[in-house]
Amino acid sequence: MKLTLVGAGPGDPDLITVKGIKALAQADVVMYDALVHPDLLEHCRPDALKVYVGKRRGAYSCVQEDINPLIVHYARHYGHVVRLKGGDSFVFGRGYEELEFAREHGLEVEVVPGLSSSYAVPASAGIPLTTRGLSESFWVVTGTTKDGAFSKDLRLAAQSTATVVILMGMHKLAEIMAVFEAAGKADMPVGIVQNGTLPEQRSLVGTVRDIQEKVTATGLSNPAIIVVGEVARLGLEHSGVLRQLARE
Amino acid sequence: MKLTLVGAGPGDPDLITVKGIKALAQADVVMYDALVHPDLLEHCRPDALKVYVGKRRGAYSCVQEDINPLIVHYARHYGHVVRLKGGDSFVFGRGYEELEFAREHGLEVEVVPGLSSSYAVPASAGIPLTTRGLSESFWVVTGTTKDGAFSKDLRLAAQSTATVVILMGMHKLAEIMAVFEAAGKADMPVGIVQNGTLPEQRSLVGTVRDIQEKVTATGLSNPAIIVVGEVARLGLEHSGVLRQLARE
Repeated sequence: MKLTLVGAGPGDPDLITVKGIKALAQADVVMYDALVHPDLLEHCRPDALKVYVGKRRGAYSCVQEDINPLIVHYARHYGHVVRLKGGDSFVFGRGYEELEFAREHGLEVEVVPGLSSSYAVPASAGIPLTTRGLSESFWVVTGTTKDGAFSKDLRLAAQSTATVVILMGMHKLAEIMAVFEAAGKADMPVGIVQNGTLPEQRSLVGTVRDIQEKVTATGLSNPAIIVVGEVARLGLEHSGVLRQLARE
Repeated sequence: MKLTLVGAGPGDPDLITVKGIKALAQADVVMYDALVHPDLLEHCRPDALKVYVGKRRGAYSCVQEDINPLIVHYARHYGHVVRLKGGDSFVFGRGYEELEFAREHGLEVEVVPGLSSSYAVPASAGIPLTTRGLSESFWVVTGTTKDGAFSKDLRLAAQSTATVVILMGMHKLAEIMAVFEAAGKADMPVGIVQNGTLPEQRSLVGTVRDIQEKVTATGLSNPAIIVVGEVARLGLEHSGVLRQLARE
């Protein structure tokens, strides 16, 4: 009875690790999310059971409290369960909750980290989170917290020299930009990358002041990563698409 | 003439991406760092030129200003250069400097991200950087900045609810802990992981108040990752080694 948490990476199916593929090839059951690329399932054994537990498609969706006991159920009946999640399981992935539940129920557990979208997606648009002379640290927050911690931390982040990366924050973009504007950073570059590392990737560079307008004009939406900081303007130099969008 | 920056990941040679291995297999020249696992070079073509440009071993060492023109030199004479670096090239990796230099000299460039040690190493000691109820964001800083930005940002971080990750900070551990103590966080858990994801991995959990003493007692040193935040205590639950060290 074993659970292996495997991070599938940011999108491109070749951005999974070798260790992740080896785990997939050994699994008796693979439980996968909506953000996982379908090609990755080709690494499974032909007789492996593949279970979709995503939260995006169609009528059926699983909440976390349903997934935890399902993992234990499948491990008891089949043996080795691989839980394949987009990005990394331990970076806003709720992987730790699954691991804890499995351990409490007697499963052996293992973690195979995956490329987190927080830096791999900006990189795919030519934006390094740190680079000498522009940024010496980065702060990753999510737009989906329930309590007020988000706003408080974001105010501190906006005062710092850190590159700030916001995951799942498109629905709060105006609110987030207001925090940076209040910190005197209206002209700070902002980069947004949608569907990073996939063929349908789109990205955009603007400033704290005008990014919302540009997003509205171009229709960029989730899943997207928001990067606030001087490094974001480096994205402009990277690709023709970026340049074109920025000039609109 | 092409440069591909490939992140080798945190240590374990199976934690490179499939895309990284494909790039290695195509390279005419591979330029690699000290932190790159030697097994990774087995993915190169037998006739590929392998050039060590690390900064740790023996008498010979390259500074960044030497590496940039070397990349261009090798690309001009051999074709496709893969620059293989520990962790991720765009997270404190100075990869962007190499990419810019190469692009200015007419090389085609590509970036294959790697697993950043900043979260993959804590994960290998059972520490998630975020988890519901304990931490909703994380901040990654380096202990090697030259100017005062480090201290200022760290003071802001110490006031936040973010998990703070410090790379290359072991030589400044006492100074860093003093910043958290001044923010009223003397009892905040601190985890330190040395040689993360490798067989010789060692780790330790303490508090802001006592971690320096425990580090001295156990002899933990670089390369190590420091994690400050409530999540660090989860490392205690993960492994026998951790528990043992923490009880000493």
